[in-house]
Amino acid sequence: MIATYSISFRGGLASGASALAIEQSLGTKSASREIADEHGARVVEIDEGSGMVRIAFPAVNLGSIPTLLVAVVGEALETQDFDRLRLISLEFPEAWFAPYQGPRFGIKGIRGLLGIADRPLLIAILKPSVGLAPDEAASLAASLARGGADIIKDDELASAVSGHDPVERARAVSEALAWVEAETLRPCVYTANITGPVDGLTEMAESLSDLGNVWPMVAEHAIGLDALRVLAGGSGGIGGDGGASRPILCHRAYSGAVSRSADFGTDAAVLAGLARLCGGDLIHCGGIGGKLFDTHEGALASMASCRRPLAHLKPSLPIIGGGYWAGSVGAVMRAIGDNGFGFVLGSGVTDHPDGAEAGMRSVAIALEAELGGEGIESVLDRPEIARAIDHYGAVWQ
Amino acid sequence: MIATYSISFRGGLASGASALAIEQSLGTKSASREIADEHGARVVEIDEGSGMVRIAFPAVNLGSIPTLLVAVVGEALETQDFDRLRLISLEFPEAWFAPYQGPRFGIKGIRGLLGIADRPLLIAILKPSVGLAPDEAASLAASLARGGADIIKDDELASAVSGHDPVERARAVSEALAWVEAETLRPCVYTANITGPVDGLTEMAESLSDLGNVWPMVAEHAIGLDALRVLAGGSGGIGGDGGASRPILCHRAYSGAVSRSADFGTDAAVLAGLARLCGGDLIHCGGIGGKLFDTHEGALASMASCRRPLAHLKPSLPIIGGGYWAGSVGAVMRAIGDNGFGFVLGSGVTDHPDGAEAGMRSVAIALEAELGGEGIESVLDRPEIARAIDHYGAVWQ
Repeated sequence: MIATYSISFRGGLASGASALAIEQSLGTKSASREIADEHGARVVEIDEGSGMVRIAFPAVNLGSIPTLLVAVVGEALETQDFDRLRLISLEFPEAWFAPYQGPRFGIKGIRGLLGIADRPLLIAILKPSVGLAPDEAASLAASLARGGADIIKDDELASAVSGHDPVERARAVSEALAWVEAETLRPCVYTANITGPVDGLTEMAESLSDLGNVWPMVAEHAIGLDALRVLAGGSGGIGGDGGASRPILCHRAYSGAVSRSADFGTDAAVLAGLARLCGGDLIHCGGIGGKLFDTHEGALASMASCRRPLAHLKPSLPIIGGGYWAGSVGAVMRAIGDNGFGFVLGSGVTDHPDGAEAGMRSVAIALEAELGGEGIESVLDRPEIARAIDHYGAVWQ
Repeated sequence: MIATYSISFRGGLASGASALAIEQSLGTKSASREIADEHGARVVEIDEGSGMVRIAFPAVNLGSIPTLLVAVVGEALETQDFDRLRLISLEFPEAWFAPYQGPRFGIKGIRGLLGIADRPLLIAILKPSVGLAPDEAASLAASLARGGADIIKDDELASAVSGHDPVERARAVSEALAWVEAETLRPCVYTANITGPVDGLTEMAESLSDLGNVWPMVAEHAIGLDALRVLAGGSGGIGGDGGASRPILCHRAYSGAVSRSADFGTDAAVLAGLARLCGGDLIHCGGIGGKLFDTHEGALASMASCRRPLAHLKPSLPIIGGGYWAGSVGAVMRAIGDNGFGFVLGSGVTDHPDGAEAGMRSVAIALEAELGGEGIESVLDRPEIARAIDHYGAVWQ
């Protein structure tokens, strides 16, 4: 397995690469020849220009997700001789992926369930983030579904344990969405945030599984990436009979602590790839042009981690957000250049001056106009669009 | 619950504090009065001098460890308006701790099992970090135990799945340590690194539980903090009959990605406190004066997180390391000022020119000299000390 790092080391790049390889594998220079050959990491490239180094780790050292994290983002990062140690990418040999099933549904499976052939998905967040009672959540969800949402998503802060029974809330939302679907003849599903005690995740997902239009959602870095793998594997775990019966939506909250610093930690794209490996079907990849920290290149790299061909793993659907509203749709679509993703919409919909349904409709109208090739300029006379521009400001360029 | 942050926000400190409180609770300014009162976070202090702000989170929003992480180190940290957002401390109301049992053994329990009344523990790491066969590990462990180690610890990279059966290795080490104990009449235990798939942790710990001198060890941030809580709770989980039958050693590897940056993430002391909450009995707190990045103040703060009085939680034993050898002992003890911790020793012991047993003995001699009040200067004529100084350099001041 080849790991690429951006490093700065007090003794220079070559010494840093060597220290990194030793610290993160044998931990000593005095290992036996036999152990060193089988378990020692090796420096394979040093690029003085970019400050990048590539280290080859024996796959035998990387037998589980937690072990992988300790090996590639371990104690070397805590040593003061490194002024920068940032993991940029991981390249695994094909055989390493064998035990990992990845997403159960992937992009095709999600599109099939929603009946959406080839356009970006519209994913609306229930706001306020915490505290909505079942009937309040159901009523807001129905408005958003009428307005054109494909998925109604809990906020990442809406917890399985924040004072309202999440199963009761899911039932209420599920029923409301079924009524709307009977009206509109368009499916809309609810992703219920089940982030909570890790020993209750599978049971919680199973308790929602009789609700056909409810999918589980977790903050995969807060529960621990390997807990996502277990959830996706179902109660049988890896190799068991189980397996998630619905697509799993992954929200990257808490991972900013790992990915935001320019000097230490891991590129967000690496984390998105690990979420895919562990079974995330929809994976939050930050944003392009919104309020989040990702650069265009960074967000596109995270999206590529979700979608690029990789062993037997299905592609996951990247979802992006962070302050999007109707006026963001065109600019974001042009930056991405294809339709294989989802828009995540929060207050850019729910704070619309005419309410959440009008806000959602403003985005659906903008999307339709983009897909038709004429853009938002062709629908400026639609009241939902005009009022959105009044409230949110200029259309993004 | 009061969270203290160091922040820098493009719109100024007061706006940043307000944005943080909103983003990490309601997620909108248009919540109903009722929901805002029950679930909204509030700014309670802004200190323009230090750039610190204090935010009060409703405890009802923080019903599990994963939910807590999303709430206090969540998406606000990913928004580009924050140039710095670093969590410094958490203060919980007493009642919040009720569901958490913390360490099962704590400092007193560990001292009781080892028969050590009041001195720092000596914890030696098996090196090389990965790849030792059962007989090699057993032989090295026996040497270290003869030299005076109280605990023989796997490296954090020694995985449950790296090519050797960890149970077989644990049996071999356990047997070797029992032989040495019969010789020396001093107990020495082995902490076996069971970091690996999270759905196998409890079973792995149980499969070692018939070995009285083997304790489990995990990298708690790599498995996910809540998986530590489940492991410490035993197969019954929270409220169940189970519970760890041995002290659990926690190695903070991977957490540097969260704690190292000066601008983003979380102080290491917060993470140490969470490891205690989740049941860590021995908790790695970085180092003082060694190769790790922690400042003296930072390491002491992590140690305080382990030991300070806190609701019904027992104190955990902080352990520190990072390049220690016999010549480090006095300086580290003076910096700490008491004996309630453990020294973690790696190549500062195993690379001793006369071998691991002599290396371990050099540290035990140095410790005894410190405890006797005369310091290492009184034992410079002991060959283990003289040879250590030849190899490792000057005694730390």
